[in-house]
Amino acid sequence: MILARVIGTVVATRKDDRLNGSKLQIVQPVSLGDMSPDGKPLVAIDAVGAGEGEIVMICAGSSARQTSRTKDTPCDAVIMAIIDSLDVGGRQVYSKSQAR
Amino acid sequence: MILARVIGTVVATRKDDRLNGSKLQIVQPVSLGDMSPDGKPLVAIDAVGAGEGEIVMICAGSSARQTSRTKDTPCDAVIMAIIDSLDVGGRQVYSKSQAR
Amino acid sequence: MILARVIGTVVATRKDDRLNGSKLQIVQPVSLGDMSPDGKPLVAIDAVGAGEGEIVMICAGSSARQTSRTKDTPCDAVIMAIIDSLDVGGRQVYSKSQAR
Amino acid sequence: MILARVIGTVVATRKDDRLNGSKLQIVQPVSLGDMSPDGKPLVAIDAVGAGEGEIVMICAGSSARQTSRTKDTPCDAVIMAIIDSLDVGGRQVYSKSQAR
Amino acid sequence: MILARVIGTVVATRKDDRLNGSKLQIVQPVSLGDMSPDGKPLVAIDAVGAGEGEIVMICAGSSARQTSRTKDTPCDAVIMAIIDSLDVGGRQVYSKSQAR
Repeated sequence: MILARVIGTVVATRKDDRLNGSKLQIVQPVSLGDMSPDGKPLVAIDAVGAGEGEIVMICAGSSARQTSRTKDTPCDAVIMAIIDSLDVGGRQVYSKSQAR
Repeated sequence: MILARVIGTVVATRKDDRLNGSKLQIVQPVSLGDMSPDGKPLVAIDAVGAGEGEIVMICAGSSARQTSRTKDTPCDAVIMAIIDSLDVGGRQVYSKSQAR
Repeated sequence: MILARVIGTVVATRKDDRLNGSKLQIVQPVSLGDMSPDGKPLVAIDAVGAGEGEIVMICAGSSARQTSRTKDTPCDAVIMAIIDSLDVGGRQVYSKSQAR
Repeated sequence: MILARVIGTVVATRKDDRLNGSKLQIVQPVSLGDMSPDGKPLVAIDAVGAGEGEIVMICAGSSARQTSRTKDTPCDAVIMAIIDSLDVGGRQVYSKSQAR
Repeated sequence: MILARVIGTVVATRKDDRLNGSKLQIVQPVSLGDMSPDGKPLVAIDAVGAGEGEIVMICAGSSARQTSRTKDTPCDAVIMAIIDSLDVGGRQVYSKSQAR
């Protein structure tokens, strides 16, 4: 899985029926160190109610359909966790409570 | 999922039977900011009736078979939504009604 | 899906049983504009009887097992259509009948 | 599969229910020669009880759901083995017992 | 599928139960022309009994679980054929019997 920051939303009226009720978020992958942007933004279905600015975990591919929110939907990327903290090499490199 | 612009079509008479009746569109991935071309064009099956020039959402991999149009077909990319608008950082960066 | 040109063949006597009878083609991905080589060649199972030099459509991943030829086989890339023509921006950029 | 070094952990309270009880490790892919960092770190669910600093094998995609730990979970990367040793060209390039 | 040369082996005692009895080979992807190294080495489960130095075909993703050896195992890459020969543009670019 990768980590990403929620940076925006997508609105689409005309879409496959199975997307009805799904929230489409734009997420920016981040570096697992200083949490800076790293890679291209993508669109993910939100299964946990994430808010803009939060660091989230993205599951991609067929496994993106394994949440109750995304089961049997045309979804190749899902937000399935909101990150509280990140430790690398015994040092905390991110804490949600201390993030701006 | 990624966003892309519909830029063309593919015609193929000799093909796997399960593709019969499917419209094959050429889509150009775009940047989720200024909507400029970003990455290589690909071919996707159209599940929502998109027209040339429209910004669409592409679902890839096994999840591309989760629309009623693409179920059980050899399809690794499907157009499953037409984008109305896009907000990044609280600012609208794309609106279909205002697009040229 | 991507488009590619058939450029060669692979022979393998010792292989998984489910590959018996499958034709293994070498395909060179091409640019969806001038049809020039673009990316690394790969090996695909031929489900439509393509010949060397033809432009074909490749389906990758689990969807490559959705043709009758490749069902339940260890196959991650299949040739599932032979391209007749390609239109980009209202202009025909490829026509099989006019190709050399 | 790829090899990677366990370098950290992720804590997430708010997450899809099926992740409950799963340990989320941060892993750094390594070169299969001198075992130096090679590529971007990612998050994987630990199915074998790996510790920080150990070299592990990562299985990605839908196959990441094939361990008893990850069955039916939104997981696209799993730690499914701890590496004892690695031989390349008849020479041992890594041995866990001799690693620092 | 891609072609690769078998260059080594991996030993792992602590692993998911479903890997028991599987041989883990290190394979180096090769160019489909002069068969020189091209891309990063990876680990694959051997389903055909390949030996070091042989050119093999690798199937990746969920299709890697379609051999009898890898069914229901956490495996995202499998060796499922040993290559005898390769023709590109009507010219034989590789023959196992003439390889060193």
